[in-house]
Amino acid sequence: MTSQDHPPAPVPGIAPAEFLRALTTRTAVRAYTDTSITLETVNALLEGMQAAPSAGNTQAWSFIVIREPRNIRRLRAFAPGVIGHPALVVLACSDDSRGPEYPSEKQVRTLCVAMAVQNLLLTAHAHGLGACPVHSFAPEPLRLLFDLPPYLQPVLLVPIGIPAHQRSPSSRRASDEVISYETHGQREPVSHGAPRGATTT
Amino acid sequence: MTSQDHPPAPVPGIAPAEFLRALTTRTAVRAYTDTSITLETVNALLEGMQAAPSAGNTQAWSFIVIREPRNIRRLRAFAPGVIGHPALVVLACSDDSRGPEYPSEKQVRTLCVAMAVQNLLLTAHAHGLGACPVHSFAPEPLRLLFDLPPYLQPVLLVPIGIPAHQRSPSSRRASDEVISYETHGQREPVSHGAPRGATTT
Repeated sequence: MTSQDHPPAPVPGIAPAEFLRALTTRTAVRAYTDTSITLETVNALLEGMQAAPSAGNTQAWSFIVIREPRNIRRLRAFAPGVIGHPALVVLACSDDSRGPEYPSEKQVRTLCVAMAVQNLLLTAHAHGLGACPVHSFAPEPLRLLFDLPPYLQPVLLVPIGIPAHQRSPSSRRASDEVISYETHGQREPVSHGAPRGATTT
Repeated sequence: MTSQDHPPAPVPGIAPAEFLRALTTRTAVRAYTDTSITLETVNALLEGMQAAPSAGNTQAWSFIVIREPRNIRRLRAFAPGVIGHPALVVLACSDDSRGPEYPSEKQVRTLCVAMAVQNLLLTAHAHGLGACPVHSFAPEPLRLLFDLPPYLQPVLLVPIGIPAHQRSPSSRRASDEVISYETHGQREPVSHGAPRGATTT
């Protein structure tokens, strides 16, 4: 058995520990300054978002970027989860026109949209922006407001802006409440008794 | 209106462009060497995973880390989506004991698990590891194998290992197929005619 303590970082210029710090310093931001965000930055956010995993690489998703103040005001009327006044809101939808209709496939498309939203939140954080995933909205009015065809299903809203305040990440549950090893409820890792991949002979 | 071209990066040592490169160079990895992964690295992966957003900070999730070769072999018998021989597999579940039972809340818990999985995939990538989200598995046998209580719902499996080969990210759909501005189908951003937040007087 070989064991590798420090595999090489595949991303030049980013050490694993720095990358981890980027993830652990992100938190939900719901209050924003009235500073706008350039299209160049918006494009970077969208690029990060679209790099998310996609089952079978179908990329069965569609995103509406809402930047016009009038449209954001209309949206907020049907989205109580959008609290502050963001510079933009991304409406993230799954696209049922790009795959079969049975429930497990619909579920997979929804999971991929959630992963794209997580990439969006992280890219925003890396740009010094604040964002928040919002599930509290009325889908039918949004469907009408933003001309969604029937095959698009709204999954999450993501308001984004310059944070009005510095916020610390919320606390996490203790690892031994949420992590098990080998079977549920086993709170400590089992030491490897045999090289992995060894046969039983 | 103020406009900010280059908001400060909130993560010392990581420029936004480098962070974005970390996201866009990740891809699904399904073939692994037989190198094992240290517990120190596993702990870093779990820390990144648990930093994902959580609705109401309920952290309604539970993760089983499967490292024993015998257990991975058993799992693979019921998970055709796990193709190679990973050093470990994370079974990511939502936890229905931590919130109401109505469908929209169950859906939110599932989305949060998907976002945690995305953090796990990215942290693995930053450590030079390869991983892949897997939805193709039989939940009931896994429930028995890993002693899952009825309130845990398996959402995704994540096999992780040292990549056997270098892989390039799969191609992405053209942005103008998946991004709209203001309303669905509007493929170009609208220029801001008025300062955001201005009233209509």
